[in-house]
Amino acid sequence: MQQRVFNFSAGPSTLPLPVLKEIQQNLLALPGVGASILEISHRSSTYDEIYESAVANIRQLLELPENYHVLFLQGGATTQFSMVAMNLLQGSEQSAEYIVTGVWGKKAAAEAMKEGSARTAWDGAEENYVRVPYRGELELDPYAAYVHFTSNETIHGVEWQEEPWLDQGVLVCDASSNFLSRPIDVNRYGLIYAGAQKNVGPAGVTIVIIRDDLLEGIPDGLPIMFDYRTHVKKDSAYNTPPIFAIYTIMLVTRWLLDEIGTLEKMQLQNRKKANLLYELIDESGGFYKAHVNTGSRSSMNVTFNITEAALEAEFLKQTQIHKLVQLKGHRSLGGLRASLYNAMTVEGVRALRDCMREFMAVHG
Amino acid sequence: MQQRVFNFSAGPSTLPLPVLKEIQQNLLALPGVGASILEISHRSSTYDEIYESAVANIRQLLELPENYHVLFLQGGATTQFSMVAMNLLQGSEQSAEYIVTGVWGKKAAAEAMKEGSARTAWDGAEENYVRVPYRGELELDPYAAYVHFTSNETIHGVEWQEEPWLDQGVLVCDASSNFLSRPIDVNRYGLIYAGAQKNVGPAGVTIVIIRDDLLEGIPDGLPIMFDYRTHVKKDSAYNTPPIFAIYTIMLVTRWLLDEIGTLEKMQLQNRKKANLLYELIDESGGFYKAHVNTGSRSSMNVTFNITEAALEAEFLKQTQIHKLVQLKGHRSLGGLRASLYNAMTVEGVRALRDCMREFMAVHG
Repeated sequence: MQQRVFNFSAGPSTLPLPVLKEIQQNLLALPGVGASILEISHRSSTYDEIYESAVANIRQLLELPENYHVLFLQGGATTQFSMVAMNLLQGSEQSAEYIVTGVWGKKAAAEAMKEGSARTAWDGAEENYVRVPYRGELELDPYAAYVHFTSNETIHGVEWQEEPWLDQGVLVCDASSNFLSRPIDVNRYGLIYAGAQKNVGPAGVTIVIIRDDLLEGIPDGLPIMFDYRTHVKKDSAYNTPPIFAIYTIMLVTRWLLDEIGTLEKMQLQNRKKANLLYELIDESGGFYKAHVNTGSRSSMNVTFNITEAALEAEFLKQTQIHKLVQLKGHRSLGGLRASLYNAMTVEGVRALRDCMREFMAVHG
Repeated sequence: MQQRVFNFSAGPSTLPLPVLKEIQQNLLALPGVGASILEISHRSSTYDEIYESAVANIRQLLELPENYHVLFLQGGATTQFSMVAMNLLQGSEQSAEYIVTGVWGKKAAAEAMKEGSARTAWDGAEENYVRVPYRGELELDPYAAYVHFTSNETIHGVEWQEEPWLDQGVLVCDASSNFLSRPIDVNRYGLIYAGAQKNVGPAGVTIVIIRDDLLEGIPDGLPIMFDYRTHVKKDSAYNTPPIFAIYTIMLVTRWLLDEIGTLEKMQLQNRKKANLLYELIDESGGFYKAHVNTGSRSSMNVTFNITEAALEAEFLKQTQIHKLVQLKGHRSLGGLRASLYNAMTVEGVRALRDCMREFMAVHG
């Protein structure tokens, strides 16, 4: 077996080793089936069990009420940028409000504007995305069709610690990079969507959770694959679903339930991991600098830089030697980024912290 | 290792065993990378090499001219039913012609009609889809934006032996269930799309091949993920692509090149396999009956039934005992169906033929 690295990639990202081992063990033939997970029909009882188990695990972890549907779609969160607006805004006389705390929220708003009357209600771009808005800054149309926010912005590392405050109306959330990393108050949401490739699976499947009453307002005549009702009616199998990706979600959520237990416990572990790095950064006397303001810092994506920027190339060389990889920041922000999704171990984060400490001792 | 069955599923379907073994071997860590294929970034050189190799293999197999682009998209062929019409028909004053030789063509036409002036030019429904049209029956608008056909209809087992005859205009093809099973004259096509889960990979990725000049007519303002130009510009990685599915395509197409050689050779093998069954059916003195007329029979999906229909349940029991599975016909047609995609071995088809022969000897 090849040696595995500590992979801090922002996504697709590291997966739990027991999950990978189970996939590997059964890759040629699922027990009792005689065919690979890559070869089975989506109209088979084998697939039905996998699908139902994946849905049940997600329902259990989020304590999802009966009136929410769990869908597995394709096309990533970017496809949802359009689908949300096609389903909830197109043909409506209401507007939609977008709270933009990073690059992904901005892209979501741009796609919604093609479909109807969408407005950027707040945009942190001028400050280069270092925080979520203060409560007093937000002036939201109480009659909006929905209010959209991005619960964690992967590139700048801005995370909402709780949901935006709404008097009324429907909250829609792109939760791609912190889905199932912490508990949420699901009843506050109308729709949640998340690409799987951060916390819950491989690239190639998007989870959509939608409240039942929102289906009633969907305009007729949408392309059949872009109408949420199609997928609700057909249990996400109107056409061939991405079976392998759903299977992996089933295994990852089972690991979460069996090995971690609850989203409360997952959150504690995720905060502990992130604090290992944020504390070192804050106590580095300015050698390292966090990008995001306290209070908006992400537990998933720790964005920082070395004040003496010329040292970053050497830092990346050192981390590589220690098998700590994918620490370069996104090209649009620069600097460094450590992504600490659910499957990143405390051991991995400690190894990174130790490497950062050592690097500072030599170069600080 | 679990014993593997002979899997005649219509899709997702059997894959080459050497491909499954390679996936299994490297599932925990790709050689020299230290992370699983499920964990690597789509902005990594590892992914770039996989993507480029998959594209190069497809180009080589199809002898694709420079002015065609190869895309890997999500959402299955059903998403293409809409995307084709959004990109090539929406906003155009021309119409689109749909030649319907089965269920999938009918669905494609229905989605196109939502986007513009699409017309069913021929429909084999009245005869319950037993053939492609005769040349003289086809009256196609020479000024149509495009003419759409389904090169192989998976459910009824109707396959075009060659492309529909066109004086001029653009040929658009849903090749989902016979893509890379035989050579085609690519220059006759404007656009080809195919879900991967029959001949080339797992569910979760759709191959689209589009001629460069068609990009010029695409209307502005489409949702960014549904505009072919987005994916051409960004090498199918505008957002996170379905990496694992593309990796599997790379391995399957490499297997095709290394183990089979060319699409001509693949076609010979596929015809040989199909003929093993069609000959037995035709020589069974009416015990078995093929659904499709000679001349339109599919090499991929052999649809047939037992004239004494009450015997079919017993037949399925017998095949199951011989580890021959997924032979039940699609619920909309009934009867039996053996799908013989590229990865189905001659050995597997012989085993099925022998079982059919034995069953007839006992019950005929």
